[in-house]
Amino acid sequence: MKQFEAWAGFKGRLWKEEVNTRDFIQNNYTPYDGDASFLADATEATDKLWGELQELNKQARAKGGVLDMDTDIVSSITSHGPGYLDKDLEKVVGLQTDKPLKRAFMPYGGIRMAEESCEMYGYTPSPELHKIFTVYHKTHNQGVFDAYTPEIRAARKNKIITGLPDTYGRGRIVGDYRRIALYGIDFLVAEKQKDLANCGDGTMTDDVIRQREELADQIRALKDMKVMAASYGFDISEPAKTAQEAVQWLYFGYLAAIKTQNGAAMSIGRVSTFIDIYMQRDLDNGVINETQAQEIIDHFVMKLRMVKFARIQSYNELFSGDPVWATLAIAGLGVDGRSMVTKNDYRILHTLETMGPAPEPNMTVLYSKNLPEYFRKYAAEVSIKTSSIQYENDDVMRVVWGDDYSICCCVSATQTGKEMQFFGARANLAKCLLYAINGGVDEKTKAQVGPAYKPITSEYLDYDEVVKKYDVMMDWLAGMYVNTLNLIQYMHDKYYYEAAEMALIDTDVRRTFATGIAGFSHTVDSLSAIKYAKVKTVRDEDGLVVDYEIEGDFPRYGNDDDRADDIAVELLRQFLTKIKKRHTYRNSEPTTSILTITSNVVYGKATGALPDGRPAGEPLSPGANPSYGAEKNGLLASLNSVAKLPYEWALDGISNTQTINPSALGNTDEERVNNLVQAMDGYFANGAHHLNVNVFGVEKLLDCQAHPEKPEYANFTIRVSGYAVKFIDLTKEQQDDVIKRTCHSFL
Amino acid sequence: MKQFEAWAGFKGRLWKEEVNTRDFIQNNYTPYDGDASFLADATEATDKLWGELQELNKQARAKGGVLDMDTDIVSSITSHGPGYLDKDLEKVVGLQTDKPLKRAFMPYGGIRMAEESCEMYGYTPSPELHKIFTVYHKTHNQGVFDAYTPEIRAARKNKIITGLPDTYGRGRIVGDYRRIALYGIDFLVAEKQKDLANCGDGTMTDDVIRQREELADQIRALKDMKVMAASYGFDISEPAKTAQEAVQWLYFGYLAAIKTQNGAAMSIGRVSTFIDIYMQRDLDNGVINETQAQEIIDHFVMKLRMVKFARIQSYNELFSGDPVWATLAIAGLGVDGRSMVTKNDYRILHTLETMGPAPEPNMTVLYSKNLPEYFRKYAAEVSIKTSSIQYENDDVMRVVWGDDYSICCCVSATQTGKEMQFFGARANLAKCLLYAINGGVDEKTKAQVGPAYKPITSEYLDYDEVVKKYDVMMDWLAGMYVNTLNLIQYMHDKYYYEAAEMALIDTDVRRTFATGIAGFSHTVDSLSAIKYAKVKTVRDEDGLVVDYEIEGDFPRYGNDDDRADDIAVELLRQFLTKIKKRHTYRNSEPTTSILTITSNVVYGKATGALPDGRPAGEPLSPGANPSYGAEKNGLLASLNSVAKLPYEWALDGISNTQTINPSALGNTDEERVNNLVQAMDGYFANGAHHLNVNVFGVEKLLDCQAHPEKPEYANFTIRVSGYAVKFIDLTKEQQDDVIKRTCHSFL
Repeated sequence: MKQFEAWAGFKGRLWKEEVNTRDFIQNNYTPYDGDASFLADATEATDKLWGELQELNKQARAKGGVLDMDTDIVSSITSHGPGYLDKDLEKVVGLQTDKPLKRAFMPYGGIRMAEESCEMYGYTPSPELHKIFTVYHKTHNQGVFDAYTPEIRAARKNKIITGLPDTYGRGRIVGDYRRIALYGIDFLVAEKQKDLANCGDGTMTDDVIRQREELADQIRALKDMKVMAASYGFDISEPAKTAQEAVQWLYFGYLAAIKTQNGAAMSIGRVSTFIDIYMQRDLDNGVINETQAQEIIDHFVMKLRMVKFARIQSYNELFSGDPVWATLAIAGLGVDGRSMVTKNDYRILHTLETMGPAPEPNMTVLYSKNLPEYFRKYAAEVSIKTSSIQYENDDVMRVVWGDDYSICCCVSATQTGKEMQFFGARANLAKCLLYAINGGVDEKTKAQVGPAYKPITSEYLDYDEVVKKYDVMMDWLAGMYVNTLNLIQYMHDKYYYEAAEMALIDTDVRRTFATGIAGFSHTVDSLSAIKYAKVKTVRDEDGLVVDYEIEGDFPRYGNDDDRADDIAVELLRQFLTKIKKRHTYRNSEPTTSILTITSNVVYGKATGALPDGRPAGEPLSPGANPSYGAEKNGLLASLNSVAKLPYEWALDGISNTQTINPSALGNTDEERVNNLVQAMDGYFANGAHHLNVNVFGVEKLLDCQAHPEKPEYANFTIRVSGYAVKFIDLTKEQQDDVIKRTCHSFL
Repeated sequence: MKQFEAWAGFKGRLWKEEVNTRDFIQNNYTPYDGDASFLADATEATDKLWGELQELNKQARAKGGVLDMDTDIVSSITSHGPGYLDKDLEKVVGLQTDKPLKRAFMPYGGIRMAEESCEMYGYTPSPELHKIFTVYHKTHNQGVFDAYTPEIRAARKNKIITGLPDTYGRGRIVGDYRRIALYGIDFLVAEKQKDLANCGDGTMTDDVIRQREELADQIRALKDMKVMAASYGFDISEPAKTAQEAVQWLYFGYLAAIKTQNGAAMSIGRVSTFIDIYMQRDLDNGVINETQAQEIIDHFVMKLRMVKFARIQSYNELFSGDPVWATLAIAGLGVDGRSMVTKNDYRILHTLETMGPAPEPNMTVLYSKNLPEYFRKYAAEVSIKTSSIQYENDDVMRVVWGDDYSICCCVSATQTGKEMQFFGARANLAKCLLYAINGGVDEKTKAQVGPAYKPITSEYLDYDEVVKKYDVMMDWLAGMYVNTLNLIQYMHDKYYYEAAEMALIDTDVRRTFATGIAGFSHTVDSLSAIKYAKVKTVRDEDGLVVDYEIEGDFPRYGNDDDRADDIAVELLRQFLTKIKKRHTYRNSEPTTSILTITSNVVYGKATGALPDGRPAGEPLSPGANPSYGAEKNGLLASLNSVAKLPYEWALDGISNTQTINPSALGNTDEERVNNLVQAMDGYFANGAHHLNVNVFGVEKLLDCQAHPEKPEYANFTIRVSGYAVKFIDLTKEQQDDVIKRTCHSFL
């Protein structure tokens, strides 16, 4: 059993015998069920630092969004010397490059993407690096395009699958960064060396060889983290001795991840309760006071607010507002039923007050009606004030993932340190329905993209015929989609392996294979229209159906009407079944999500008119949200519809974003808090998975769009599908989309 | 069916429907059973060019062996502009770099090896390339060492396995370079594109993905070959129209291979009969005369004599004399029984007269007693004159590989354009016997390398006990060895894939997995000594057996004595059985060889005293050769012993090198030729696989060693195990080894 002086006062045994952060947490954390009155204000240093960062953000916005960029340094764990925002003030240090907000050059995912992003902001990419990453070193992107079939290329071009991580990092892998704080690098290296010694049963199969090489890469990454930390004056070979060190150590691990990977989502994980153990020990021993505790957390969160990657135009259109999904999950219950809320979970929410609202870190409360009431109310209060929090149902996730899962992207759970996910973007099921009707011909480009099955030729759509054809077309889509993801994940492992993150995950890792659905509500409503109303086809000169006329009314998803909601549940079951039956890379476990992020706009633009009456080119509704305007029975009815979708069939997440007019929640602050808590208690008790809570009226959005220069809008944050974003950072198109969404004026 | 003007006069159909060089050859070649009298002398241009090359070779020797080196260009198909020996005179053009004999910088196999070879010859490797191939791009060598186990490292260090291709290219892959001449690049690209379209059944498994990427790389390589040829002023998109073009086109293919791969063996393949078809057409049409035909072949062969790679000290010790195994196989019979000897086979042998003897190309006659008598005699005549030819039994190989196989290294057959081989160096079975006796402890380093089985503790070795322990130790060795090769081949495919060669091989390729045996004769003789004499162990202070005293006489392998030869046959069967039962990379077919090249010296140095009386550190006998001094019954008895080893159990080859005193063959040139032909007819009729024929006396070797400056020794070539070498290019140690070998003074 290992013993370190730094562990003085910590209880438990198993976590000293093996790397087991969860066991450490369960043995040592102090649940807190009191109120928020203990919280301290921001220090002067925090105010100053935050002011400096705000100024830099303003400068960046003036320059089109990007303050500065590297063009001739390839980002790696040790590529840059130390960088600071304000060295004398920072309690937590470490930047992605040598300067704050300077974006790193990351070519491994795809050199063209890296270069395009430079050029987009007026920088000249290095010709030497161009040669290296085209002539000498293949990138992930090149590998993928080498292997793509014409079918996949057509599907991608016609946007029946979109947002594939084939030009940048797949992201969504959460290293257990806490391990560095708890164990120090040397112990982690020694454990990985033991794994290397026990890799395989003695026969060198491809799997064993690959794993051995990956372990060697992981060990190198761990050693590099020490070098990086040393450049900042810290020796992270051994465990952290204080709360400040614990935060610093784990942040260095995260920094290694974001220096080497530009994944869409780069979550920090579930660190709150863990850090609280160190905070509590230091508070008990008089090492720090509450003000200092809050300062450490503020500076840590400020670092997470600073994470940036160099992106390109098409990426920004898909994921608007420059998000990185530095998702930070807090609260939740233990499997023993104890609340895992600590004072530190308050401190983290409190950063939305000490420094104001912010889109990052993507603040996520793992919700249960069994969380302490004070905490639920405090979260609701901050939500109402800042619209910067999302909620996920800990009661459904805990059953599947235990009590130490992180949120690895928008809403997807992943067992911290035990699991990695192959991120897979999404397939457009609404477009697939049009392919079923038109025999695989794309309704926008008129290209034969899907298989040339017999199209529907009747004037009025027949429900049974449509359902039958849709099933076959979806089978094609699922197969082609899984194929595409298999080869993307293969190439990512080959050319852009996440050594730093995987070094902080168990060697015997669980792998999930994430797929996703776009156009969910429209497909449901379209099928409902065909079933319950009469839908007439409108054909163009080639006989292709390009529009629909609906005669009569039909039930829509989002009104707690089982006629529509049953179709929704079946649709999810159908798609998952078709995904699950296929071969998946590295025998990973297939999952799916109903989760579009902001790609609903791009998807919508590429999707023709639908039988539910949605015109061609209009944004699809995001995630599992009911279609815009469909919800007629208020927020609770809408929530009930979404809650019917079984989380067990969409383990990658079911995203639901709602906007509530403050007045709908009540007339006083207290009333609003109580009503929001009550709504969420009910929603999640029904088995729903996720809720983005926005509390504002449309008039505020319209004013902000018209007057983005107003100081109160500088950090005006809203929740979109799966993340938060500053409203002024959205494109006009995305802003219009948000304005169009249902804003509930009654519960 | 494809049709090209360039094909005018060519018969047959299948080869026009698909890429099928063999079908083209069988339909179009003109067997020749006449004598050598038609041959023409070297032209003035040839003499001048050869003189210039000789002068460059002399300059290189004066500079320690290397004339010039690249340090800052990474060799690729298109990395260099055109280079010439003497542009106005050359009938076949194309160099590895921009200057003759200048060695290219090839880091993909291992940057350290590439840099070490620069430094060894006084060049400074580029720091930029160092950074690129250490920080940005992993090399094959790094990949291998990442995955090696401590057991493999120890086995490698203690030299129970040696010569592994883990720091350079594995070589031994022969592109069907004739395809470029016959079809032109564009058709080959189109065919590979069809393969890409038909790759896999629709499910993206790892195998399919890997193949798709490999095909994309192959297509890129083909396109690059066009660019390279264009830089020399040739358009190789379409088929060659003349013999000169045919030679030039196929040489460009080979050039692409040696620009991208520095494999130990880089064979040119079986091109003679193919070229003759073009020669014959041009001769028939009066396009060229015989002098011009010979000139084209001379210049082509001169190019093959110029191939060089940058090597390091330890490599040179293993494979002495700077060989590249540009193996050129000629003659053989078709499966229809027709001789495939053409006038061109004569022309190729004749280069050893027009330009004198030379180690490269590694001249290989595919022998059968059914080859035309004139040809057999001409080959024997050139052999006696030059000692530059090896012979391989076409009658045993044709059964296994058909009639279009090439020799891909020293002696190993490979189906041209249909097969690739995973080269695997060799395991030291003699050392393995010592491990069996000493319980896995290395007799030289005293390290526990093999498993710690119970050692033999008796004073006298008991045959049954030794055999039992040997079997178990060999099982360990075979398993560890196959594991090592599996991971080497995996990393080679990953980091150093042979796109240029594989582009000229069928996509649906057959893969063999070559292993090899070193120390064969000594193991046989040692077991015979233990069985038939009394062998007493001599132990050191630690109880380790370090020497042996033999009491009494025992039969030795190499005397046509079944008591010893039966042990030899069983040893081969035993090893192959243990290799075959194991998992091999990409489901390749395991084979083995008895073939040490010149590594017998390095192996011997690392091997302790053996129970057959061979002292510690002495060279092992090479390949399947009987031990030095063992052969007491003359050449024919020795050949009979080797011929008992079934080729079917060592499909990678059984190498036998013999030196015959001219006087032993007869007193006149005619007598000598007839006797050599008769000896080979008999040897190969017994089912033997291979024979290196040297005809000279020991006195010549001693004189050459003493007076290397004499002009007659400048190109004095001898056959060693599996290749030919200039005697003066061997290390002193290797020269001594050759001098010690049996020189038969009677048949």
